[in-house]
Amino acid sequence: MRDVAIIGVGCTEFGELWDKSFRELFVEAGISAIEDAGIQGGKIDALYVGNMSGGRFIEQEHIGSLIADYAGLASFNIPSTRVEAACASGGLALRQGIIAVASGYHDIVIAGGAEKMTDVDVETTTDALAAAADREWEGVMGATFPGLYAMIARLHMHRYGTTSEQLASVAVKNHHNGMMNPKAQFQHEISIDSVLNSVMIADPLHVFDCSPISDGASAVVLAPAEVARKYTDTPVYVKASAQASGTLSLHDRRDITTLDATVVAAKKAYDMAKVTPRDIDFAEVHDCFTIAEICAIEDLGFVKKGEGGKVSQEGMTAIGGKIPINTSGGLKACGHPVGATGVKQAVEITMQLRGEAGKRQVDGAEIGLTHNVGGSGGTAVIHIFGRER
Amino acid sequence: MRDVAIIGVGCTEFGELWDKSFRELFVEAGISAIEDAGIQGGKIDALYVGNMSGGRFIEQEHIGSLIADYAGLASFNIPSTRVEAACASGGLALRQGIIAVASGYHDIVIAGGAEKMTDVDVETTTDALAAAADREWEGVMGATFPGLYAMIARLHMHRYGTTSEQLASVAVKNHHNGMMNPKAQFQHEISIDSVLNSVMIADPLHVFDCSPISDGASAVVLAPAEVARKYTDTPVYVKASAQASGTLSLHDRRDITTLDATVVAAKKAYDMAKVTPRDIDFAEVHDCFTIAEICAIEDLGFVKKGEGGKVSQEGMTAIGGKIPINTSGGLKACGHPVGATGVKQAVEITMQLRGEAGKRQVDGAEIGLTHNVGGSGGTAVIHIFGRER
Repeated sequence: MRDVAIIGVGCTEFGELWDKSFRELFVEAGISAIEDAGIQGGKIDALYVGNMSGGRFIEQEHIGSLIADYAGLASFNIPSTRVEAACASGGLALRQGIIAVASGYHDIVIAGGAEKMTDVDVETTTDALAAAADREWEGVMGATFPGLYAMIARLHMHRYGTTSEQLASVAVKNHHNGMMNPKAQFQHEISIDSVLNSVMIADPLHVFDCSPISDGASAVVLAPAEVARKYTDTPVYVKASAQASGTLSLHDRRDITTLDATVVAAKKAYDMAKVTPRDIDFAEVHDCFTIAEICAIEDLGFVKKGEGGKVSQEGMTAIGGKIPINTSGGLKACGHPVGATGVKQAVEITMQLRGEAGKRQVDGAEIGLTHNVGGSGGTAVIHIFGRER
Repeated sequence: MRDVAIIGVGCTEFGELWDKSFRELFVEAGISAIEDAGIQGGKIDALYVGNMSGGRFIEQEHIGSLIADYAGLASFNIPSTRVEAACASGGLALRQGIIAVASGYHDIVIAGGAEKMTDVDVETTTDALAAAADREWEGVMGATFPGLYAMIARLHMHRYGTTSEQLASVAVKNHHNGMMNPKAQFQHEISIDSVLNSVMIADPLHVFDCSPISDGASAVVLAPAEVARKYTDTPVYVKASAQASGTLSLHDRRDITTLDATVVAAKKAYDMAKVTPRDIDFAEVHDCFTIAEICAIEDLGFVKKGEGGKVSQEGMTAIGGKIPINTSGGLKACGHPVGATGVKQAVEITMQLRGEAGKRQVDGAEIGLTHNVGGSGGTAVIHIFGRER
């Protein structure tokens, strides 16, 4: 198995991008990744693209072919494959790209993700997103995602004393980080009060506890580690790629405050990278709701179960804290174009490890982790990246 | 890169399966493949599933997690990934499974495909399938798939003298083969006259020139070639896996009677397997329409361009002919649950190479090929399998 490195990254701005189509978004991200890597289109051996619901959002499937074609790569007949795992689609596309390079099937691979969510009305968006949960046991009961994560939050509060203020502190921190990210959908501060006074979506989750509906795309260029320095002075090495499944439905879980898929994928990833949670300098985690970030930092082993809310409020996860989380602004403030998110996380880690994250730079960052979740935990995928091989 | 083998196969019946749900279908195919391989669920390292349009057909995305969960594998937290490339979704899921084993990331992998197309009305089905073409340049113009392939047929007739009788002979041959396949949707003979007298869908394609709308699922179990004989006395070896893209839209092609994606993928596959078209004993090709089989046998190099209709009428592609094509009945008679088709092709090749194809057995079959197409040629994926490594 060959080691793999990231040699280029690209990302569009995230937000309600009325003047850009799905195909334009992906091409923009892809070209910027290719330019960053300093390669030509003809050097690319394969494309992988994460996309959750082109069929519902833009009435288009066969996304791999679309992307290859509109990127001007059809003349090279480059294999192009769409991967879907709800909100973890981007993370899995990245993983397939890594496996393809590791296998020797391909050398230079672009792994990207894209979603265009604002071309349909919000009811269609909500229903399309509900297709990430179990349609027959959750969706038809009216259990959309805010409702599912509200149940997780309610039990976490009951069992561990987590408070609404602690949940809100996650949103406040991520907005603060987003303010320093020129690609973020929300580049402004919010306060604990503004979260607590915002409209209630599914008790105890206010609208400011929820990630937004977004358009956007992101891409990375992968290469065999042994040749990465031919392309860049600052390769970022993939130290681990791990994926696990949980039950699709929340009610089938052993414990709804723990995502077993995250726990299992994390253990595999730490083993593969030969590190422990203490070795991780910073991470991008899947904060589709504030409670999700709290569960994530627990399930990833950064803190003990039940302490996620407390440490978030105390600043442990802020830039400058013990383990900065979601320096990009996370799904909450950077935005959450679902297919793009998992790849955007890797873009952020790469920029941090290269020392190119500007005002939000984490000092001395050597090892970073990404954590991308599909649905309420049916899929989790974790990558660990390092400055050193 | 490790060599890969198929150690087990499974397939549901194909057809209008009103009494079986999507999740039941995949589990049935998966269990039958696992039983065929003689392994336990806990031995499985990863799942890949091809599915085109769960979002439109059953309002369900996150198909990988769904499948792992309903197969009873969620307790093992097995990574499960959905792959989509329209009607080539199954072929690409198979390819990702092969790459995953080749890479060393996983040892025992199930690659399957499933589609449940009959739970929605036929207008929704047609519109969902049109999402495999370019929605913005073809779909909105009313160019659904029969129309696109009719244009291919019309030019092929004009340029090469291909006749409606020659097109019909493909359907007649595939129905004859399907009659000998207990899993096939149509297990009865048809005549040239019945094709020519059937209702016209898009001139020159009659309804009997078109593959049907189907439900079904199929699965194979993959393992590293070096351990395959631990599981079975009749492993089937993957000699090549190759994929290529073409333009998404038909009007952007250099020549609409040639699928460049097929030509390029075929060349790569023959190079990888170190064989020529003459070494292929039999093949399953993508006959979504009769004209598609004619173009396929030309683009795969079995006959010269323009001769596909003539040789089909003369019997070269029948069982007992020089190169039997679509012994399963093909998409035309076996049925075409779009996500399942690419994997079902590999199931058929495996059964033939094991000598287990019953009345439709090809004598002395040593090397077989599968050819799976997405859309009108935006994606093509080709696998070559052999009895010997």
